[in-house]
Amino acid sequence: MNEAILLAHGSGGKLSHDLVEKIFLPLLTNPMLARLDDSAVFEAPGRLAFTTDSYVVQPIFFPGGDIGKLAVCGTVNDLSMNGASPLYLSLSAIIEEGFLIAELERIVRSIKAAAEEAGVSIITGDTKVVNKGQADKLFINTSGIGIIPSGIDISGANARAGDKVILSGTIGDHGMAIMSQREGLRFETPLKSDCASLNKLVAQMLEVSPDIHCLRDPTRGGLATTLNEFARQSRVGIVIEEDKIPVAEGVRAACELLGLDPIYVANEGKLVAVVAPGDAAKIVAKMKQNKHGRKAAIIGEVTAEHPGRVTMKTKLGPSRVIDMLSGELLPRIC
Amino acid sequence: MNEAILLAHGSGGKLSHDLVEKIFLPLLTNPMLARLDDSAVFEAPGRLAFTTDSYVVQPIFFPGGDIGKLAVCGTVNDLSMNGASPLYLSLSAIIEEGFLIAELERIVRSIKAAAEEAGVSIITGDTKVVNKGQADKLFINTSGIGIIPSGIDISGANARAGDKVILSGTIGDHGMAIMSQREGLRFETPLKSDCASLNKLVAQMLEVSPDIHCLRDPTRGGLATTLNEFARQSRVGIVIEEDKIPVAEGVRAACELLGLDPIYVANEGKLVAVVAPGDAAKIVAKMKQNKHGRKAAIIGEVTAEHPGRVTMKTKLGPSRVIDMLSGELLPRIC
Repeated sequence: MNEAILLAHGSGGKLSHDLVEKIFLPLLTNPMLARLDDSAVFEAPGRLAFTTDSYVVQPIFFPGGDIGKLAVCGTVNDLSMNGASPLYLSLSAIIEEGFLIAELERIVRSIKAAAEEAGVSIITGDTKVVNKGQADKLFINTSGIGIIPSGIDISGANARAGDKVILSGTIGDHGMAIMSQREGLRFETPLKSDCASLNKLVAQMLEVSPDIHCLRDPTRGGLATTLNEFARQSRVGIVIEEDKIPVAEGVRAACELLGLDPIYVANEGKLVAVVAPGDAAKIVAKMKQNKHGRKAAIIGEVTAEHPGRVTMKTKLGPSRVIDMLSGELLPRIC
Repeated sequence: MNEAILLAHGSGGKLSHDLVEKIFLPLLTNPMLARLDDSAVFEAPGRLAFTTDSYVVQPIFFPGGDIGKLAVCGTVNDLSMNGASPLYLSLSAIIEEGFLIAELERIVRSIKAAAEEAGVSIITGDTKVVNKGQADKLFINTSGIGIIPSGIDISGANARAGDKVILSGTIGDHGMAIMSQREGLRFETPLKSDCASLNKLVAQMLEVSPDIHCLRDPTRGGLATTLNEFARQSRVGIVIEEDKIPVAEGVRAACELLGLDPIYVANEGKLVAVVAPGDAAKIVAKMKQNKHGRKAAIIGEVTAEHPGRVTMKTKLGPSRVIDMLSGELLPRIC
């Protein structure tokens, strides 16, 4: 097999078939994918969730993950945030001519591992190759389908005054890991992306209470943007407390050095939940039993006042209004 | 709204929300999309089909279509080729910084029109922006979900000796339209892509006989590659007759000029079907009633001899073995 990706690997002809048969199929194989038809077929009675994300993260390998793991975890998480159990993913790659096949294989292996850990199958796929200079190495799209158990109705529009806001752990890890890798910064504590699939954590939360109102993973735009989305979609106010929000020491140091606020920095293995006040403590207790929820905490609450507005009580005392991210903190974070 | 796409349009923050609210939502709106949650929710009991494709066609506007129409039709067709009625699409855009918002809107309008014509809804989406020079204008991924009526079992692996091979119309139109546009070639008859959704044509074929064995749209790699895929998947031989294959006059002239064989050139609004011999004539008759099947014809048959091999009886008499496309005829054709 040629060592670098050629344009002909995207031709739909012989080399395309070689690539599928030598790299993708052996690693990701399952009966549905192996049919190699134009689409995959499955049975899934009931309510389904459907999501899509393209991944353009740069660099494609970073501490704690790579673009393949990120693509699986990100799409698994988008399904989980609707309370769906992820079932199937699609995988579509846009590859720059000249990309090393060994690197592609490394990424497909990482996709395989992440899919196995989350318990999902890749059942359909596509590969395109563009000329050198017309894309940056590799972009991946994963779309996903999950099944929503009956009785679950989670939406950013479901927050109600009095609800509690739960955060599953430290914020800013993914964004600062990418940024430090890209800028060549070194810290005493090496920064590592939190990239992880949260479907099992969500399943455990739903065991405690199926009545979770909102659930979202604060990726691009960070915690601040996710809370603003909830406040707008639900037409409620949200008040959070800065000193309840866990931030890893290295992330805090990196943010201070670079003049960034961690509440705007992307996460890839965290979630924010809005739940009824009576459910909050027991949900947090359950979350702490999962490795992805060990630092879970109630960080604030939903108010009837100031619909659409998010306010943070700062450590120093006064409150400040927290807006969505404006401008671009860090391009190609995911 | 700023006139060009900025990196901040991909930040997940304010400008990302603006883009969704001002461009995508007004044009593509439906209750499922409008929820703006991480994934869309739908009910679809029964057997479903799932497919994905990324589109990197260059130029993004071409005679007969654009990257948006192509993305909708291509994914609708991939579902249709499993006999599925397309229901829902996802839409994910990777946009180069500096791309004109007016052009993006034009493409989203085209997506809207193509989705309406095919009767599908876009129910979930994603937008990423990469720095100038890190992608070429716009790449689009559409994934799709369709429902397969009971009793339908279509697969490239279902061809049987004695079956007839049906082609829905002229070949090479899409590929030669793109190539002539790119190379600035002009012909007496202007070349136009055949880009179209074939779901209604397929539904009409299935009305005549639900027992269609194989169905595929010969996109990248052209008719020759699709037939080779059937021959390999079904472990059968296929014999076609060159003079039964319709080729538009302009496409034939362009192919001769450029030294190309139309059987390797991409199509975006054609299908190849393999059906039981007793069904072939009535299916072709029905296809001719649809504007996308007016030139439908039986072009060959399936044999037990030479499994995996495709042979063409040429106009001049002798037969030749038709292999898959090897090498790349035309990068970024779809």
